[in-house]
Amino acid sequence: MRQPQTLLDIPTPALIVDVAALERNIQRMAAFFASGPCRLRPHFKAHKTPEIARRQLAAGSCVGLTCATVSEAEMVAGLTDDILIANEIVGPGKCERVAKLAERHNVTIAVDSVAGLEAMSAAAIKDGVTVGVLIDLNVGQTRCGLTPGLDALALARRVALLQGVRLRGVMGYEGHLQPIRERAERERRTREAMAALVATARLIEGDGLPCDVVSGGGTGTYDISGRVPGVTEIQAGSYVLMDSDYGSLDLPFEQAFHLLGTVVSRPDPGRCVADCGHKSATKDHGNPVVDGMEGATVLSLNDEHATIGLPAGSRIAVGDRVRLRPSHTDPTVNLHDVFYAIEGERVLDVWPIAARGYPEHRAVISRL
Amino acid sequence: MRQPQTLLDIPTPALIVDVAALERNIQRMAAFFASGPCRLRPHFKAHKTPEIARRQLAAGSCVGLTCATVSEAEMVAGLTDDILIANEIVGPGKCERVAKLAERHNVTIAVDSVAGLEAMSAAAIKDGVTVGVLIDLNVGQTRCGLTPGLDALALARRVALLQGVRLRGVMGYEGHLQPIRERAERERRTREAMAALVATARLIEGDGLPCDVVSGGGTGTYDISGRVPGVTEIQAGSYVLMDSDYGSLDLPFEQAFHLLGTVVSRPDPGRCVADCGHKSATKDHGNPVVDGMEGATVLSLNDEHATIGLPAGSRIAVGDRVRLRPSHTDPTVNLHDVFYAIEGERVLDVWPIAARGYPEHRAVISRL
Repeated sequence: MRQPQTLLDIPTPALIVDVAALERNIQRMAAFFASGPCRLRPHFKAHKTPEIARRQLAAGSCVGLTCATVSEAEMVAGLTDDILIANEIVGPGKCERVAKLAERHNVTIAVDSVAGLEAMSAAAIKDGVTVGVLIDLNVGQTRCGLTPGLDALALARRVALLQGVRLRGVMGYEGHLQPIRERAERERRTREAMAALVATARLIEGDGLPCDVVSGGGTGTYDISGRVPGVTEIQAGSYVLMDSDYGSLDLPFEQAFHLLGTVVSRPDPGRCVADCGHKSATKDHGNPVVDGMEGATVLSLNDEHATIGLPAGSRIAVGDRVRLRPSHTDPTVNLHDVFYAIEGERVLDVWPIAARGYPEHRAVISRL
Repeated sequence: MRQPQTLLDIPTPALIVDVAALERNIQRMAAFFASGPCRLRPHFKAHKTPEIARRQLAAGSCVGLTCATVSEAEMVAGLTDDILIANEIVGPGKCERVAKLAERHNVTIAVDSVAGLEAMSAAAIKDGVTVGVLIDLNVGQTRCGLTPGLDALALARRVALLQGVRLRGVMGYEGHLQPIRERAERERRTREAMAALVATARLIEGDGLPCDVVSGGGTGTYDISGRVPGVTEIQAGSYVLMDSDYGSLDLPFEQAFHLLGTVVSRPDPGRCVADCGHKSATKDHGNPVVDGMEGATVLSLNDEHATIGLPAGSRIAVGDRVRLRPSHTDPTVNLHDVFYAIEGERVLDVWPIAARGYPEHRAVISRL
């Protein structure tokens, strides 16, 4: 297929990104961190798109990139020298791949177990490299991570005893606080969570161990966590594209991407059906929002179909386009292989979402 | 990466399919339809995997394949001559692609609007081909489709007046009835829905128009709809792999696929965290179910993590594998690029989920 020239040429469903809005989001976030001392480490998992990461780094204020997976880290290796994989790395081949990456890059991973730490150490020793380590702390989300305080100190001491790994600091993601609507409560609880993180960093340093990095934060709390003394970097990702969930907070970022669909059915006056269903946008944060069509709402999102309730008198017809604002950026982008980069109605470029899904499995079939 | 030899070699998260269980599901469904007169038209959208479709066709009782999208139809063109795209086809290039496919195959699409019908007719005329048409009826799901009866007859008459399109029959998907737990109610309402479909087919025939195909059904209703006199084919898809949602019904099919994950964190006695999150399994039909680990349940499914509640005394450790039974087959499979085909612990083969996502967009970047 030829590259589409305008919005009208794009087969649907498809993701479109407004390049000007994206750039404004990037610049606003970079400006916030320009004065330091805390820096930005944009999270690649939100968009998995090298071209967007390149633009984030080009805007400045970045200490490197954050990734969620080893595959993502492999994908950004050409873009930055400083890569944090902000997750525990466990499983066949994973530590070996991190070690390989550490041959040429400054790579850091999160750890919260002796088993995970020792596996990384062994792979790094075998490869003759050193991998950075952040102790992952549970700052209230209760997913991965150790309790702040003495448990973390014990694991930090363990790092110091091993070869192939180097203690760099601590991290803790206040994911549970990102969506709090009330600003004062979000501020109060975020400061509490970050205080526990910073206190543990000081505890580790007090023990004579290095703890230069204190990493946390997200799009909903970047300006709170990013001003807590002692926090050194913020892992925000969604700000660059935004979604209807973050859009309901008091954030200075614009909706920069949409799901483009086509009306395929107009069975009655109050309803149309578009071809952009649940295989093209997740609904874990609610149904997508219809943009640019007053009074229209997504009534249901089935695998292949968005059923849209229409206001009285709507003249939308079969073949018309609809634009949906996804409710959750990361898993929605993960459904797609490309962004169509647009300016108004014009398609400027097509950006591969190169780290979509699990590239290691695609590598297996490409060798069959 | 080399092809994994055993389950232990597979990087996670990954989909695994038990080939023996899959084959038993295929054979059971084929046996049900072997006696006719109703036939099976397996729905490709459930798995998007050519190797699985090949096995379904090889088992017999099939009249062809059902697809949800033009891309899927293009993907199965080498497997069968008789392809139904059970959706309205609208949007840039879509009708042209269907026409192209109809140069060498017997292709049928669903229509529920004059606009959609005329677009298909125009593209078919231009290409010098004929495309089959089923009038899509709303049998209660209230998504696409015309009201059974006179509206459908009016559109059928319109088909008969146009070149490039040929009326083949009617279709109606009783999707809203698939999940009804109580068998007697599911039977009663499915028979009602199919009666409306068959009655409209007879109305159209009574008008002197051809109406040989009456297509409907799914995994939850195949044995009900498939025995309603006048229904000629059933579009079931999920039966071949199954999920926890269909697994709660009284169906004779086995769970044939799982999401394989690795425990990356074991932060406290009551909880572990695995690397198979919402980017690897959807939760639109609920959280996945933990198989093979008594008393364990998925507490939350975040983008990259499944947090699993553990029974007292659980000895699961970092590095252990977990198997999750997804709650909804179709959108979960759509997140992955391959199935690892297994027999016990052994990896027999790797099957590309070739129609995952939107292949037309991948075609754009492959030409950049």
